[in-house]
Amino acid sequence: VRPFTLVGFDADDTLWHSEDGFEADKARYLELLQPFVADDVDILGELLATERRNLAGFGYGVRSFGLSMIETAVKVSNGTVPATVIGRLVELTRGHLDAPVRLLPDVMETIQQVRSNYRVVLITKGDLLHQTQKIATSGLADLFEACEVVLEKDSSTYGALLARAGVPADQFCMVGNSVRSDIVPVMDLGGHGVHVPYHLLWELEHHDDDHPHQYTQLESLIELPAWLAART
Amino acid sequence: VRPFTLVGFDADDTLWHSEDGFEADKARYLELLQPFVADDVDILGELLATERRNLAGFGYGVRSFGLSMIETAVKVSNGTVPATVIGRLVELTRGHLDAPVRLLPDVMETIQQVRSNYRVVLITKGDLLHQTQKIATSGLADLFEACEVVLEKDSSTYGALLARAGVPADQFCMVGNSVRSDIVPVMDLGGHGVHVPYHLLWELEHHDDDHPHQYTQLESLIELPAWLAART
Repeated sequence: VRPFTLVGFDADDTLWHSEDGFEADKARYLELLQPFVADDVDILGELLATERRNLAGFGYGVRSFGLSMIETAVKVSNGTVPATVIGRLVELTRGHLDAPVRLLPDVMETIQQVRSNYRVVLITKGDLLHQTQKIATSGLADLFEACEVVLEKDSSTYGALLARAGVPADQFCMVGNSVRSDIVPVMDLGGHGVHVPYHLLWELEHHDDDHPHQYTQLESLIELPAWLAART
Repeated sequence: VRPFTLVGFDADDTLWHSEDGFEADKARYLELLQPFVADDVDILGELLATERRNLAGFGYGVRSFGLSMIETAVKVSNGTVPATVIGRLVELTRGHLDAPVRLLPDVMETIQQVRSNYRVVLITKGDLLHQTQKIATSGLADLFEACEVVLEKDSSTYGALLARAGVPADQFCMVGNSVRSDIVPVMDLGGHGVHVPYHLLWELEHHDDDHPHQYTQLESLIELPAWLAART
């Protein structure tokens, strides 16, 4: 086995909590909207459909989620939702963006151990401003050789990053919670993936693998240094 | 005079129209809101105040503008704006994001002439997705050595880009429509700026120069190759 040179870390739901913030927003959204929506309407189902439609135009992230919440509120209420509730949705969006980063357990220690043997980079997708703010306030930025905010985590993005880092794909290992974004596109390049699931996964990150990929799954990030060490 | 090595181009309102799209949105916004707002309320003044407040949290770009339009609509109408109007504001935002890029005159020819003598890069700030889409559909991407979407055009950002490109500041010339974002931070590093004004300038880009910077102003981009040639 050729040794790894570079280890990439996803950020949202790999280094810090993210999806639970959206879950909390959705719970509050239901409370705010239910008084204005017929009982047989699946509010969160409609919200997800709006998010899916808006993904190409609005992209990932909290501001897009906020716009989708507002659009869906108008629709599912048949135009009856009061402006004051819309105002609350803007506040919900702002509050989400302002929420402090909450690191997952053992993150700092794990990265410190890994970086003593490998080059390490952070690779996250989504909103440039929000991701940059989270990286800056996480206290982790200085541990990484580079922190990359990308638009989409596909094979061509990973390929460009590896070319810039001067690392062949088979010497790269990506660690993250999303099989779809962190594992499959890297393996398709000939790289390696380590899946560390988070207890929540956004529906639009769900992955149906017709041609199953063989990748490692760890229960927690703290197992990563030992797994890396055992491999060489 | 030491010759330039690298010429940087701003994008919005330097290579393609941008601010006039926001102006059109604001005209439509006034039409939509006026029926629900008292006559003595300065709707666009309130919108600008919201944008200014939201800049740190929401950042630049159309999605942030959309959220600020919605937030302001709730406020200036004292919560009386109907949800259907809010729905129109979401549509306005989506339409703006989907609008095709409209190049300014002579852009393609100018860049082609400049790149035959200098390295050229595009440096734009704002929304990663929207800027990337505009770059991709502009037909200009392949003319540039790199297209950089940055969060803020300040001296530290320009310094990092120059370090990555391996170019000393005094061999760098930045071309753009905003004195505040394209000229002053580059000159503060010891670089050069060429100001090519656009007929509209966003209020939050206005620049009060207490210590006037000496920079070149050209009426149109087509004058740039001759100016560069005359300088050496």
